[in-house]
Amino acid sequence: MEIQPIGTIHTAFTEKFGIPRQSMIVKAAKGVIHFEPPYDQAEYFKGIEEFSHLWILWHFSEQKGRPTKATVRPPRLGGNVRVGVFASRSPYRPNQIAMSSVKLDAVHTDESGKVSLEISGVDMLDGTPIFDVKPYIKTDIHEDAKSGFVDAVDWTQLDVEISDELMQQVPEYLRDQLIEVLAQDPRPRTQTDVNRMYGMRFGDFDIHFKVNTGILKVIKITSHGHD
Amino acid sequence: MEIQPIGTIHTAFTEKFGIPRQSMIVKAAKGVIHFEPPYDQAEYFKGIEEFSHLWILWHFSEQKGRPTKATVRPPRLGGNVRVGVFASRSPYRPNQIAMSSVKLDAVHTDESGKVSLEISGVDMLDGTPIFDVKPYIKTDIHEDAKSGFVDAVDWTQLDVEISDELMQQVPEYLRDQLIEVLAQDPRPRTQTDVNRMYGMRFGDFDIHFKVNTGILKVIKITSHGHD
Repeated sequence: MEIQPIGTIHTAFTEKFGIPRQSMIVKAAKGVIHFEPPYDQAEYFKGIEEFSHLWILWHFSEQKGRPTKATVRPPRLGGNVRVGVFASRSPYRPNQIAMSSVKLDAVHTDESGKVSLEISGVDMLDGTPIFDVKPYIKTDIHEDAKSGFVDAVDWTQLDVEISDELMQQVPEYLRDQLIEVLAQDPRPRTQTDVNRMYGMRFGDFDIHFKVNTGILKVIKITSHGHD
Repeated sequence: MEIQPIGTIHTAFTEKFGIPRQSMIVKAAKGVIHFEPPYDQAEYFKGIEEFSHLWILWHFSEQKGRPTKATVRPPRLGGNVRVGVFASRSPYRPNQIAMSSVKLDAVHTDESGKVSLEISGVDMLDGTPIFDVKPYIKTDIHEDAKSGFVDAVDWTQLDVEISDELMQQVPEYLRDQLIEVLAQDPRPRTQTDVNRMYGMRFGDFDIHFKVNTGILKVIKITSHGHD
């Protein structure tokens, strides 16, 4: 079956490195979905503001052309235990459709009548094609759910150290997001080199940091492309 | 983007009439997913038995060729109030991908090594193409979710009357499902004619019933095609 994007999401995640590993892990991570005509018209969204959460179906567009694997190594298991692709939410799957539950913050209509949705808890790369928006409903909640290896291992949060001076370089609306994203530990799970300087792109910035014994220290922030 | 079914689900819902209006509303409603090669191999499902619930992405295949509408009339609102298609889980949407959360009851491997998944809480027509299976994880739970018109109106359950004699005609493994499905009131929301005899196909059977003041009475059960 042929499916077509209905819109595109814009986020501060301008590269894969640093993207939260599930939706709603970084509640402050914001996004705005803009829609293609005719799906940008208010009629299509009538009543959506009554829902607090939405499901977004989107394209794992970074995986384009990569083969499906039978097993994957989830970051939550440290990147060295294999589980079946259908026992994971990995992007390496036959149909590259992702699903994220997000919070609906606002429905905007611009002067020409085009609708956009402001959401938070996003885990999508900037520019990701969107296939569908569906309301999150009560029957989606299974409080008794057991979620295998995802239950078994907690994410370890890092303490984030960043000087006021460095923080001044980042626009105010991005600051909470940045700290939450860094606290999630964006490093690949297999890397623990305390001397290594990591660089993460965030919005138009490159965030340079080191990690040692549970503390992530931001060393430098530069505009992207200028070191 | 082109997407391809990875398998097919088999359920007792051999026609659209009577299918639960969301997944997990009829917890007893069973289904079995069979997979296409190479996705039928055990490796693809390694670890899946540790999850109690799954997400199934599937094709609203009954909607083939029908145009998308900007607004739809959800059955929960009695079928006469319009909401935007993106504020509903209606099948009349640009990309005909449905998502259902279901309970994983068992993982079967047959003598030739092919895997099938036994699930419950299904809301899919028999023969529906499946696009993806993903584990249900804790970050999918939003207990504080407000779900608009879906919260506003409760489904009214019906009391189901069916004689022992009639029930004997239905194989034992289908009986609980049948009663739960009928209790959900399979009638179109706009119909309340107490004299009308309804016919619902269920598995290989035609279930004939009438509804009056909250009671659904099964009048006759016939093998499909024989009255």
